[in-house]
Amino acid sequence: MEHVKKYIDANKDRFLSELFELIRIPSISSIQDHKDDMLRTAELWKKFIIEAGADRAEVMPSEGNPVVYGEKIVDPNKPTVLVYGHYDVMPVDPIEAWESDPFKPEIRDGKIFARGADDDKGQAFMHAKAFELMVKTNTLPCNVKFMIEGEEEIGSPSLGNFCKKHKELLKADIILVSDTTMISTDIPSITTGLRGLAYMEVEVTGPNRDLHSGLYGGAVANPINVLSRMIAQLQDENFRITIPGFYDDVIEVMPAERAEMAKAPFDLDEYKKSLDIEEEEGEAGFSTMERTGIRPSLDVNGIWGGYIGEGAKTVIPSKAYAKISMRLVPNQDNKKIAQLFANYFESLAPKSVKVKVTELHGGYPYVSPTDMHAYQAAEKAYTATFGKKPIPVRSGGSIPIISTFEKILGLKSILMGFGLESDAIHSPNENYPLFNFYKGIETIPYFYKYFTEIMLA
Amino acid sequence: MEHVKKYIDANKDRFLSELFELIRIPSISSIQDHKDDMLRTAELWKKFIIEAGADRAEVMPSEGNPVVYGEKIVDPNKPTVLVYGHYDVMPVDPIEAWESDPFKPEIRDGKIFARGADDDKGQAFMHAKAFELMVKTNTLPCNVKFMIEGEEEIGSPSLGNFCKKHKELLKADIILVSDTTMISTDIPSITTGLRGLAYMEVEVTGPNRDLHSGLYGGAVANPINVLSRMIAQLQDENFRITIPGFYDDVIEVMPAERAEMAKAPFDLDEYKKSLDIEEEEGEAGFSTMERTGIRPSLDVNGIWGGYIGEGAKTVIPSKAYAKISMRLVPNQDNKKIAQLFANYFESLAPKSVKVKVTELHGGYPYVSPTDMHAYQAAEKAYTATFGKKPIPVRSGGSIPIISTFEKILGLKSILMGFGLESDAIHSPNENYPLFNFYKGIETIPYFYKYFTEIMLA
Repeated sequence: MEHVKKYIDANKDRFLSELFELIRIPSISSIQDHKDDMLRTAELWKKFIIEAGADRAEVMPSEGNPVVYGEKIVDPNKPTVLVYGHYDVMPVDPIEAWESDPFKPEIRDGKIFARGADDDKGQAFMHAKAFELMVKTNTLPCNVKFMIEGEEEIGSPSLGNFCKKHKELLKADIILVSDTTMISTDIPSITTGLRGLAYMEVEVTGPNRDLHSGLYGGAVANPINVLSRMIAQLQDENFRITIPGFYDDVIEVMPAERAEMAKAPFDLDEYKKSLDIEEEEGEAGFSTMERTGIRPSLDVNGIWGGYIGEGAKTVIPSKAYAKISMRLVPNQDNKKIAQLFANYFESLAPKSVKVKVTELHGGYPYVSPTDMHAYQAAEKAYTATFGKKPIPVRSGGSIPIISTFEKILGLKSILMGFGLESDAIHSPNENYPLFNFYKGIETIPYFYKYFTEIMLA
Repeated sequence: MEHVKKYIDANKDRFLSELFELIRIPSISSIQDHKDDMLRTAELWKKFIIEAGADRAEVMPSEGNPVVYGEKIVDPNKPTVLVYGHYDVMPVDPIEAWESDPFKPEIRDGKIFARGADDDKGQAFMHAKAFELMVKTNTLPCNVKFMIEGEEEIGSPSLGNFCKKHKELLKADIILVSDTTMISTDIPSITTGLRGLAYMEVEVTGPNRDLHSGLYGGAVANPINVLSRMIAQLQDENFRITIPGFYDDVIEVMPAERAEMAKAPFDLDEYKKSLDIEEEEGEAGFSTMERTGIRPSLDVNGIWGGYIGEGAKTVIPSKAYAKISMRLVPNQDNKKIAQLFANYFESLAPKSVKVKVTELHGGYPYVSPTDMHAYQAAEKAYTATFGKKPIPVRSGGSIPIISTFEKILGLKSILMGFGLESDAIHSPNENYPLFNFYKGIETIPYFYKYFTEIMLA
């Protein structure tokens, strides 16, 4: 496999400049103004896939942003890997916290700084380049399909129907995804579980107009005070979620399995130091890793109401809002949880206000077993390029579409993430180390090789 | 006094077009970008006072926005009325809730719609025009001084020192202010009490950067969830404020006095209907009017943190903020309350976050006795023009500078407010009925007449 490193070395600058082209388009899927940017990014992806050596590539319509599809079929009797990734990115606010323009990639300290540098332009693009490497060096051992969507960051609302419609086209043996993290480059790991998500928006309405807080203060319910009280009631003093029925479907992880998980390296002092917090906070009776790996959680992702400008304004606002999301663990159904949340939240509202609850998006949790062929191939691939056997870990994050794939396409996914938690995805100064970018491109061809060997054995 | 109505009738259109000139300048004191507008508004006020017939008028420097001073001394042995008002206005957001441009005054349904139409451009300008009326008709019975400031809406931070510096210049017998409301034009009333104010801003910091809510959710304190819990703890289930010592200095109003106050006309159903609320909410054991009139209150005036844009973003923000203000009643010291609040709020913070509390502004409560000469003169003036004796009422609002005047200048204020609660001051679609504007101009000369008569008697 010497050709792998050789090809990367010979082309590494071009790989980077092509990735930068992708990054420069602000393809923020949650903001309508970026519709044109979504199309431009999709077209650029199509061009890259074709140039890399695909037989065909298309920007295919969906009910939302288009999906880039591409394929190279070397032999119908060989296995087929379906690469999934997304070309859309998260919003950039708070923009003032960025040290450089989020859409003008910069290299500092050996890392690419930009929105999408990791999630998921950087990680998905590794697959385009690994594919190119295999094609150009005549080492592609199996069939490859690409499906790169533009709505992952808003919960992939159209991809389920896209998969239903194109089930035949998307036939494959495994879905290969790089959109997760590894523990570190010293301790490679493969994600074997993802949490599900139920993301809600709530609106609390008090009086029908903003009121002067002097003339009305003390006599009329203030929707911000009420919303704060309602949020406070969503968790108890042990940080357990109080929504009736919330934990009913949670499969408790057995003590033996928890003991096994506890062996993964984790330094709580280092963790607290890196976040500059004096104390961590979470559900009583569980460790920090368990709280994100095997337990559900509830976070207010945004809150707003009243006067939020400079100085003071003595107002009782008419409305207050919050975006509240819950991470779910295996066997919790996000649709059911969304309904339980809505019922409970409405029940918390005093008669002095009106409440509106909307489900913004959601997804099922996912588990990827370590005994499947693709996991074994991935394990061998990491071992070959990192020199260490990777550790299987449950991630706290969610990629809602992964469980949808399983349901609609009947396909498992292998989550070969090369990101680091320090990459600050979804945050200001998102970054992706060059080491990880190139290491990913290097590792992927090994996966194709081992996966094909195992499947044909 | 026939000349009063006559003069108003002959000049009413000009009065209005001059007021509109004032309103068109967006003199928002809480936003730094409007510094030039503050100066322009002050200069225009000076011009109007001179044209109305003052001996002198000046735009005088203060530590903040300038103060417009003007005077006409008819006889040093006659009483002196010091007119106080303010030329600054509140911010206009949420701007989308306005039916017309806040700085392009429009007349609809017999009301002037604009920011400052009532508070306090409309009400203060009545005094300029009443003064003009008395000068031009040779009926001014006493000396008049004007002091129109530009920082009332941010708590008059510079006017205290201005008063100290110009104590001699500001010598007078009474301060005359129109910056409050009356019950209705059918039930005229005079404000005899104002609540004090302590206005705070709080900042809650969790992790040192925005985090992905999947990777960290459940393990790290979310500053929005924490802030909500802390706000929820500021009041108990009876809506009493829980800050230790908060009520210590409150003078409980005696049952007999409360019974007297309860005679003021008030229709709770009408009140709820006008606000479109099913239930009112406030401190147990007190009526709605008592809750705003004789009891302190606590309101969150603004809250923000995390992602507040369109769609969903799965973030745990680093910081969350709130603006929280308390209305105070006689004998509560706003400085002491601000300190009690800060101590308590900080004590509520779990170790998982850091908290910063800042006092934005404040003011003492004020009581205006009904047995003072100015009250009696005002009572006679309203009776003359409205045909009904006005009712004394305690307002829930605050004009912090009024108690400062008493302390520094040794002067009581008489609060002849002609606004209505429906004027939506501080809110979108602020308005001021033309009837009240002209009725105010009509009533003020009567006050001067009766006040001079009583003082010289």
